[in-house]
Amino acid sequence: MRLATVHTADETATEAVLLHPNGGAVPLGAPDLGAFFERTDWREVAESVAATPVHAVAEVGRFAAPVHRPGKIICVGLNYIDHIVETGRDEPDFPTLFAKFPDSVAGPTDEIEVIGSAEVDWEAELVVVVGATLTRANAHEAEAAIAGYTIANDISMRDWQHRTLQWMQGKAWTAATPMGPVVVTPDEFDPASDVRVTTEVNGEQLQDGNPGALVFGPVDLLAYISQFTTLRPGDLVLTGTPGGVGSARSPKRFLADGDELVTTITGIGELRNRMRIRER
Amino acid sequence: MRLATVHTADETATEAVLLHPNGGAVPLGAPDLGAFFERTDWREVAESVAATPVHAVAEVGRFAAPVHRPGKIICVGLNYIDHIVETGRDEPDFPTLFAKFPDSVAGPTDEIEVIGSAEVDWEAELVVVVGATLTRANAHEAEAAIAGYTIANDISMRDWQHRTLQWMQGKAWTAATPMGPVVVTPDEFDPASDVRVTTEVNGEQLQDGNPGALVFGPVDLLAYISQFTTLRPGDLVLTGTPGGVGSARSPKRFLADGDELVTTITGIGELRNRMRIRER
Repeated sequence: MRLATVHTADETATEAVLLHPNGGAVPLGAPDLGAFFERTDWREVAESVAATPVHAVAEVGRFAAPVHRPGKIICVGLNYIDHIVETGRDEPDFPTLFAKFPDSVAGPTDEIEVIGSAEVDWEAELVVVVGATLTRANAHEAEAAIAGYTIANDISMRDWQHRTLQWMQGKAWTAATPMGPVVVTPDEFDPASDVRVTTEVNGEQLQDGNPGALVFGPVDLLAYISQFTTLRPGDLVLTGTPGGVGSARSPKRFLADGDELVTTITGIGELRNRMRIRER
Repeated sequence: MRLATVHTADETATEAVLLHPNGGAVPLGAPDLGAFFERTDWREVAESVAATPVHAVAEVGRFAAPVHRPGKIICVGLNYIDHIVETGRDEPDFPTLFAKFPDSVAGPTDEIEVIGSAEVDWEAELVVVVGATLTRANAHEAEAAIAGYTIANDISMRDWQHRTLQWMQGKAWTAATPMGPVVVTPDEFDPASDVRVTTEVNGEQLQDGNPGALVFGPVDLLAYISQFTTLRPGDLVLTGTPGGVGSARSPKRFLADGDELVTTITGIGELRNRMRIRER
C-alpha cells in the first residue's frame, strides 16, 4: 500500500490518505499518518480501503510530510560503506545515532530556507516509519513494527555540524529536513532489493546508493534503538546516507541559493525542494 | 513566582499550578506548564493569580515533571570548567549540544528504571524553560523569553554513550531524566548568584557546582540555539553539569539498583529518585 499525508484542496488542513490502486486518494480519517498509525488497527483499515473498489475518489492534493510531529526522529550517522570510507572511518560495531526535532520536518516540495550556514550539504536517506509501540524488541517484533518506508534528505550544515563533537546543531535546523512524499508498506517495498537512493542537484546526480548494503538494516536499527528508548507509532528512523556528499568531494561542494535538490528512492518517489540560502 | 505541574488528588490527571506565596496551589487552567506557557499572556495570568489574596487553596498534590511533552530538550555537554577539565578537554568556542526526546522525561520523585546498562551516572543540571517563541534572537530577546528555571538530572549510561562518537544513545533513555519539581521565574531566581547545583547519592554529596561559572549562560544558550532552530514555549535547555560525575572519578563509580539519587539547586528545590537498575 501507498499512504500519504496530503493538503486539502483549499490548503487549510491536511489528511492521511491511501493512494488507491485504481487511482486517486481515499481519506483515512486522520489529519496525518502519524495520527493514523496511532490506531492499533491502522493496517486493517488501510487494507480494507485498498480492497474496496472505489467509484469516486478525491484528486490527490499537494503532498505534505507524512508525519507532522514525530515524537522521535532518530538519524543514523555512518551506515553505508562508501560513506564511511569517504569520511575516513572504520566499519562500526554499533550504529551512530543522533536526533532531530519535530520542528525539523519539511514537506516533499517545500522550499528549504537556511539562514546562516555557508556549507549546506545533501544526504539522501531511506526512512523507516514506525507503526507500533516497541520496547526492547527482538528482530521479529521489530520487523512487524515497520509501518513502511519513505524518503528524507538529511540536509546538513557542515560548518555548524563540526563546531563541536556533537553533530546535532548542524542537523536539526527548523524545517530543513524534507520528507515524503508517500509511505510504502513493506509488502510493496523491500529495501534489500535493487533499490537506489539518489540525490540530484540541478539535474546532476551526486549520490547513488543501495540500502541493501546498509551496515545496520531497518530491522536491526529498530531492535537496537528500542533497547534504550520506546519507539512509538509515527517515530522515524533515518537510516544514513550513501557516498557522494558535497563535503567529502574534492573540491568540496555545497548547495547554493536557488539550487533544486531532488532526492529519489526507486519504488517510493521523489522529494523536489528549492533551496533558499542566505548568510543572514 | 513558583510554578509547577502537580498530580490531582486522585492521580488521574495533572494540572499547572501557581504555588501561592500564602501557601497552597492555585490551578492555572492548563494540564501542565508546557500548555500554560503556550498562552502568550501566561505571565500576566500568573502574576494576577499571585497578587490575589486566596482564602481557600488546594493542597499541593504530588509534583509531576513541569512540561510533559517538551517539543525540544536540548542538552549542553561541556559547560562547567571543572567538568571540562575532568573530561580532559579544552574550553570550547561553541556550546556542545545534543538532544533528548519527550519520552525521556521523568517526574521529580519517580523511580528511574534502567535496564541494560552497567554504567549509570549522574549529571545534576540547571534547566532553562523557554516561555516564548524565539527565532534568531539577540541577547535581549533571549533573556525576555526565559520562563524560568528548574532542575534535571541528565542520567547518563556511559557504556552506551561512548559506543560511538554521538552521545545520544547514552542519554535519551525513556523516562530516565527526572525534572522539576517547580519552575521559578527569573525575578526570583538568578543563576549568576550564589546558587549551588548538587548531586547526592544515598546521602553522600558527589557534585557541587555554581552555574554562575557556566561557560555559556542561559541567555547565551537560547540566543545561540535560536540561530538554527526556533525555540518554543515549553522547550527545555539543560545547561550542563559541574564536576564530580561518577565516570570521571578514580576509581569510577556508578549508580546501583536501589540507590537514592537526590539532585538539588538552591532556590528551586530537589529531585529525589530511587534507581531501579538491572542488566536485562
